[in-house]
Amino acid sequence: MDAAQEAHNREAFRQAVVNTLERRLFYIPSFKIYRGVAGLYDFGPPGCAVKSNVLAFWRQHFVLEENMLEVDCPCVTPEVVLKASGHVDKFTDLMVKDEKTGTCYRADHLLKDFCKEKLERDPNITAEKAAEFRHVMAVLDDLSAEELGAKIKEYGITAPDTKNPLSPPYPFNLMFQTSIGPSGLSPGYMRPETAQGIFVNFKDLYYYNGNKLPFAAAQIGQAFRNEISPRQGLLRVREFTLAEIEHFVDPEDKSHPKFSEVSNLEFLMFPREDQVSGQSARRIRLGEAVAEGVVNNETLGYFIGRVYLFLTHLGIDRERLRFRQHLANEMAHYAADCWDAEIECSYGWIECVGIADRSAYDLRAHTDKSGVALVAAEKFSEPIEVEKLVIAPVKKELGLAFKGNQKMVVEALEAMGEKEAMEMKATLESKGEVQFQVCTLGKDVTIKQNMVSIIKEKKKEHQRVFTPSVIEPSFGIGRIIYCLYEHSFYTRPSRGGDEQLNVFGFPPLVAPIKCTVFPLVQNQQYEEVAKRIAKSLTAAGITYKIDITGTSIGKRYARTDELGVPLAITVDSTTSVTLRDRDSKQQIRINIEEVASVVKEVTDGLSTWADMQWKYPAHSSASNED
Amino acid sequence: MDAAQEAHNREAFRQAVVNTLERRLFYIPSFKIYRGVAGLYDFGPPGCAVKSNVLAFWRQHFVLEENMLEVDCPCVTPEVVLKASGHVDKFTDLMVKDEKTGTCYRADHLLKDFCKEKLERDPNITAEKAAEFRHVMAVLDDLSAEELGAKIKEYGITAPDTKNPLSPPYPFNLMFQTSIGPSGLSPGYMRPETAQGIFVNFKDLYYYNGNKLPFAAAQIGQAFRNEISPRQGLLRVREFTLAEIEHFVDPEDKSHPKFSEVSNLEFLMFPREDQVSGQSARRIRLGEAVAEGVVNNETLGYFIGRVYLFLTHLGIDRERLRFRQHLANEMAHYAADCWDAEIECSYGWIECVGIADRSAYDLRAHTDKSGVALVAAEKFSEPIEVEKLVIAPVKKELGLAFKGNQKMVVEALEAMGEKEAMEMKATLESKGEVQFQVCTLGKDVTIKQNMVSIIKEKKKEHQRVFTPSVIEPSFGIGRIIYCLYEHSFYTRPSRGGDEQLNVFGFPPLVAPIKCTVFPLVQNQQYEEVAKRIAKSLTAAGITYKIDITGTSIGKRYARTDELGVPLAITVDSTTSVTLRDRDSKQQIRINIEEVASVVKEVTDGLSTWADMQWKYPAHSSASNED
Repeated sequence: MDAAQEAHNREAFRQAVVNTLERRLFYIPSFKIYRGVAGLYDFGPPGCAVKSNVLAFWRQHFVLEENMLEVDCPCVTPEVVLKASGHVDKFTDLMVKDEKTGTCYRADHLLKDFCKEKLERDPNITAEKAAEFRHVMAVLDDLSAEELGAKIKEYGITAPDTKNPLSPPYPFNLMFQTSIGPSGLSPGYMRPETAQGIFVNFKDLYYYNGNKLPFAAAQIGQAFRNEISPRQGLLRVREFTLAEIEHFVDPEDKSHPKFSEVSNLEFLMFPREDQVSGQSARRIRLGEAVAEGVVNNETLGYFIGRVYLFLTHLGIDRERLRFRQHLANEMAHYAADCWDAEIECSYGWIECVGIADRSAYDLRAHTDKSGVALVAAEKFSEPIEVEKLVIAPVKKELGLAFKGNQKMVVEALEAMGEKEAMEMKATLESKGEVQFQVCTLGKDVTIKQNMVSIIKEKKKEHQRVFTPSVIEPSFGIGRIIYCLYEHSFYTRPSRGGDEQLNVFGFPPLVAPIKCTVFPLVQNQQYEEVAKRIAKSLTAAGITYKIDITGTSIGKRYARTDELGVPLAITVDSTTSVTLRDRDSKQQIRINIEEVASVVKEVTDGLSTWADMQWKYPAHSSASNED
Repeated sequence: MDAAQEAHNREAFRQAVVNTLERRLFYIPSFKIYRGVAGLYDFGPPGCAVKSNVLAFWRQHFVLEENMLEVDCPCVTPEVVLKASGHVDKFTDLMVKDEKTGTCYRADHLLKDFCKEKLERDPNITAEKAAEFRHVMAVLDDLSAEELGAKIKEYGITAPDTKNPLSPPYPFNLMFQTSIGPSGLSPGYMRPETAQGIFVNFKDLYYYNGNKLPFAAAQIGQAFRNEISPRQGLLRVREFTLAEIEHFVDPEDKSHPKFSEVSNLEFLMFPREDQVSGQSARRIRLGEAVAEGVVNNETLGYFIGRVYLFLTHLGIDRERLRFRQHLANEMAHYAADCWDAEIECSYGWIECVGIADRSAYDLRAHTDKSGVALVAAEKFSEPIEVEKLVIAPVKKELGLAFKGNQKMVVEALEAMGEKEAMEMKATLESKGEVQFQVCTLGKDVTIKQNMVSIIKEKKKEHQRVFTPSVIEPSFGIGRIIYCLYEHSFYTRPSRGGDEQLNVFGFPPLVAPIKCTVFPLVQNQQYEEVAKRIAKSLTAAGITYKIDITGTSIGKRYARTDELGVPLAITVDSTTSVTLRDRDSKQQIRINIEEVASVVKEVTDGLSTWADMQWKYPAHSSASNED
């Protein structure tokens, strides 16, 4: 199958999934009656239920199992916080404008589309040109505004809708800006991630945890990105639900007590080296990856394992899930290591969870900006005697000598390492002065003996104070759910074979409704039984849908398969009912009094359908499925 | 006790509650390390757990029990939607500015504070003046900008912080404004309520419900109000969680099939008439209130009853809960009836849930603005023959006669009622022409016989098409939680009697943590038992906190009482443990294997503490509580 055919098939599959999702209100373009807004979607009833099931499981799997500290912070965030985090200055995408209409596009998207189009559609392309386009696509994220602009010019790329010329690329900040309070003087933004709310609370949370490391805080909430031109449906949206964990750990000890619980897991990993050398992702045992240093540390490895368990439990296909390590150029300069859980869907491999060791960056940034020390302390069992270098610039003398440059000189002196300082001390003692390079001034200055005191003090220290490292698993809930839709979707022929029926094969954990209740035919007796069963389902906390329309039972099954309902109860007598399994379409007979508890056992995951088939008689009517 | 003393006591009680809440991180002023932002709060770990328990119960009590359609819509909302709903034009508060510093204040708050201060602190106040101040406070919400300004001037009210003169009051829109997309041309707002997301989806939701009424949609989510000067802590904030229900119903039939389930409830109600005539709230049976027309209809009454059950289940004191009907001047002109669930706390009676019959207003507003008919249809079992008035303006003739005014004339003709139209028809037939007033032109025009055809047609109609009424219960989750904190809080003397200990007496349903586990003394054996129990609690889905510090058991109980943890397990042997009830401080002995299931039974509400005391032996050690 060639690339074009493959692309076509992917497109057709996606259309089938998306049509079903929209028709059954899993999601709805927001504000549809007003022709919608790009990048904003509503979750309709089944989508909302799936989302709330996924979040409940996330809470169980991460927050409760690991005793994390969950917090809930506002979306509206004052500028100072996002200035400290770097978002105000750097959270940008490069944008080009149609020079006549003013329509905006993401510069990298246009360039990528152009290369992809050429590669897929141009039969006369030379091997050399093809290699070039592939290279451009590979390095896309690293291109500067100038480089992107140059390529767009070189390839003669124009505005897709009008063919008008494009402006050079320039950065556009992706945060939604607003103003807090009535004065108009306090700029604020809608948070682009939930993490900052945790970092700024580090001190209180550390105290709440008894001043002990490690601990993790977690938050589920809305985040906002004012995308330039959203596309890819639910995958690139302007408002979305994030679930984030910030695990704070001593940078000198990133072991994890529960690592052994996940070390034997084996799954697709895609280390940096394999990517660079052109290999594919391969199955690696997690314990090995950590032991060999492919994954930087145990805690990072532990979370990779837990994320793997989380996603596969939800129903993500393990063959279409891989953990890809960031390349050196993808990673922020401060990050120690970073792995993305990528899920393959019709759009390709999609980053759904990022698991990064962000070192001390975030806490340091907020310490610097706020002046509040976000640090932890390790108490020594016995005080330790340490020799400490103390550099004390004499500001008065330095001021006289360097005037306006005094501050730069002071900072440079204080920043000296131990070796450099001790050499200076020796030189000052022998020669009385020394030449000293001040980088921020771009020149050497002369330091005299009376300008600085350098000594080594012996001190007893009772504790080690340090900025914790943070390991951050960050989950894009909407993306995970969309991939889950694709992985769960299949079609099968109707009984007559004249049409294809859609099925969402959700595991019970995820299914928006656990069970449907149908009277086989419209009659008052059956309806009453159905209502009695409905009541017992509510009491057992099972979500259900009751359908007392006169539609054929086959049509009713088809409707409920499309919603991914795992079990269906058909009332065909006043004493017992049939229970049908969605995927096998097999049925068993159960007494009315028992049916709710059987449904509960299966949907709670305590028993399987096979267990129940063994326990209850099969029902083999001609069951008119269509 | 006089008013001043009472105010002082309330203040002291509130301080005790708030101090405990802040110290134990139930909530934290957001962005505290940057000196915070007024009106923004974080929920710390216990607060976050309480919130998620309250929301889970809300979902169970409303969405699941009533089979509501839950949706999840974005916060970012385009202007057109909020223009239609009236928020862009009318969602304002009146503001005054300090004329020198520019600091902003809510005009009504300053006036209210002034009157309150006078009433509480001025011993020389005349009876006449006192009556005047009380009157001003009563009509505060009805005062126009001019009237408010006049009062502020008359009383010589100045800026509270500086005593500078104030500007006249002017309206300030309370929505956070932003811009959607990169062009800067699409204004948007952060939604001030979640309801609009449901209204704009009415058509799809009605279809999803099988084109049947009544049905309800529900949404839980963040809402935003850019308050001018937030105060009252958690009660008036700039971002908060709303849980809203929109119940769509045929305006000609507002009965409710389950009303009988709540009709015998009896609780404090405060009908409009009683307020006007100066009476107090009184206990009324809900069935009576509906039968006597005090509550407008059964569906509204049903929701009042369900809200009562919801709040009291959470632990709201039924003596400090009342349902107050809106006065005629409080209610929007379109509303049929409106009741607030008000909860009394140290700030007075606080509106926590609004339950309004909004008639057809919202759906009509969006129908008009979007051009999409948000209507329902009742199919007749047999077609009904109706006589229908058909007014058909002849546009060509009208165009020739009225040129640019044609459109206004056509609209005026089409808008005629039956009586007016039939009179015109008669006049046209007898005289050939008629004088016709066109309001939009501000004058009469002459209509001739060839310009309009007016006939009565007999038609068979198969259905009645109408705009549904909407009954909206809207829950301020943060306010409910704050009142719950106050209602649950009490203090009791420590064993030595030397200090007062704080307790949050949450019901298990609400408690942030259900159970704590303590080894009585620090030793490895007990610690291992504690960890084994912890594991069985996790497996049973029970949130717990384990405390293996060497602190005295009494201190540890006190700590956990402050978090409102209902049960505590103390490990004092390797075979059995003691289980302690928070409120009675009584203890029973239970085998290690059984303890998790006992905790689960009590915290799930399946058994009470009394049941367990009957089943298990009491433990009566000197139990060193302090």
